[in-house]
Amino acid sequence: MTLIHTFAGNPLDRADALRRKDDWLDAAIVADTSRYLPLWQLNVLIGADGQLGWLPGAAVTRLGEGAPPVFLGLADGVAHFAQDISATGDPTHELGLPDGARFEDCRAAAMRLDTASTGIIAQARAQVNWHRRHGFCSVCGARTTQARGGHVRRCSACSAEHFPRTDPVAIMLVIDREQDRCLLGQPAGPIARTGFYSALAGFIDQGESIEEAVRREVLEEAGVVAGDVRYHSSQPWPFPSSLMIGCHATAHSTEITMDPAEMADVAWFDRATVRRALAGEDPKLKLPGPIAIAHHLIRAWLEESV
Amino acid sequence: MTLIHTFAGNPLDRADALRRKDDWLDAAIVADTSRYLPLWQLNVLIGADGQLGWLPGAAVTRLGEGAPPVFLGLADGVAHFAQDISATGDPTHELGLPDGARFEDCRAAAMRLDTASTGIIAQARAQVNWHRRHGFCSVCGARTTQARGGHVRRCSACSAEHFPRTDPVAIMLVIDREQDRCLLGQPAGPIARTGFYSALAGFIDQGESIEEAVRREVLEEAGVVAGDVRYHSSQPWPFPSSLMIGCHATAHSTEITMDPAEMADVAWFDRATVRRALAGEDPKLKLPGPIAIAHHLIRAWLEESV
Repeated sequence: MTLIHTFAGNPLDRADALRRKDDWLDAAIVADTSRYLPLWQLNVLIGADGQLGWLPGAAVTRLGEGAPPVFLGLADGVAHFAQDISATGDPTHELGLPDGARFEDCRAAAMRLDTASTGIIAQARAQVNWHRRHGFCSVCGARTTQARGGHVRRCSACSAEHFPRTDPVAIMLVIDREQDRCLLGQPAGPIARTGFYSALAGFIDQGESIEEAVRREVLEEAGVVAGDVRYHSSQPWPFPSSLMIGCHATAHSTEITMDPAEMADVAWFDRATVRRALAGEDPKLKLPGPIAIAHHLIRAWLEESV
Repeated sequence: MTLIHTFAGNPLDRADALRRKDDWLDAAIVADTSRYLPLWQLNVLIGADGQLGWLPGAAVTRLGEGAPPVFLGLADGVAHFAQDISATGDPTHELGLPDGARFEDCRAAAMRLDTASTGIIAQARAQVNWHRRHGFCSVCGARTTQARGGHVRRCSACSAEHFPRTDPVAIMLVIDREQDRCLLGQPAGPIARTGFYSALAGFIDQGESIEEAVRREVLEEAGVVAGDVRYHSSQPWPFPSSLMIGCHATAHSTEITMDPAEMADVAWFDRATVRRALAGEDPKLKLPGPIAIAHHLIRAWLEESV
């Protein structure tokens, strides 16, 4: 059994060997058959049919204004690109879109589309965003330019090469096996006091294993000591470019000492409460939906497969 | 059973809540009790006793020349810092080091030191290197300055915050269960034709799960179709800042089509051959030592625990 999360399941062949060939790439960029997915201010084009709004290159690349197409991969021999057209003031007009077509927030779109489409959105959004934020070399401050179809940026002044960044995040459901309950938290900030709780999570630091990050985050955010850590599954999360690494952890202590800078609340929830809430039947406790790996960590515990 | 790899096992408390307090940090930087680990050109100071060369701040920070101390964490209430002194021409002389003390390559040092020390080396090397290469803002090209004890760099011109980078790498031992053998590769480049083989590996791309990255890399590098992927363990690898995510994968095809741009050779090896080689008893086949997660992926297969 392999669980394919939202934002995974990208069917495109990233064709690493081909993207290294400039001649091939140049031909693919102008080929009539190539398909382009425009992104505007990190929102993705959705066609009038409600699906990903692929367009021919001729319609799209002229709106790039300094942002070269990003090669996503191949499907049935056809090259697929993402094109940032954020410089355009009115993309709907410029593209002559039919009624019903629109630029949609990637997360909202992903909640409706099939897994394959969400995988393409994840790659396209993460890559376009990375290029938008890496026009300059972090080593020397000079301009960088895109190469290898978007898989690298090279500094125009020093020899530095910069590669797209993926930030590993540990996300963990901590389980109190003795009292058959799990630890959920409500982050500080805008979603505090909405009734929304989720698994604890945090970026994995430099010089840290996944298991160490799990234990550190649980201790920092909840004051709880976690022992055994078991990997469950992973999910790309393109906001902006995380890799969510989902784990279950066994609590070795249960008293909660919350970090108020990070969390609005952290608490233990028993199995019956969590089951009701995951089914959307608890007006006070809202849990993540199936789009998020946290949902599946919780579900796996409820189904006693962990 | 939890395997603690080399470069994991860092005993310091990263004290995230404290490092956000500038007053506390300023006091810790100048405290007589604080301990500093100097790095010079990414080599770590080893004392005359062969252990990590911690020094008092007064001896070290004056050699920083624009590189503020990086707060590593606390041990028994004592603040520990890494200090980049690469600007110094002759650090041995400047520090007045005794005979036997020297700056050593971090990998070489890690092969000899206890796990706790290697964990500190991993954090110190990755963090110091990241600061060295991020003096400028990738968004706008202006200078950045270090904040929060080294956990963030802020742009002096735009509002951008930049965080230390950790690159997740999938490393996988592919197993042909029918013929009881595993897939090993010899990367192209300097180590080709040395007889050294290891597990296949590659960076996880944006918009990709761990499992997808494993299958893509195995297909790209070896032309082999991998099915079931199982997580084994993870290892920080500070060259410069990878997180090695170790997996076992089951081969669904066995014919090899190698990518000659990446690999000098890829081949199947039977259990008896691999067992001999892992014990260092095969003059022709050299395998990774216990410092590397690949060693443990191979060992786990030999011990039939996967």
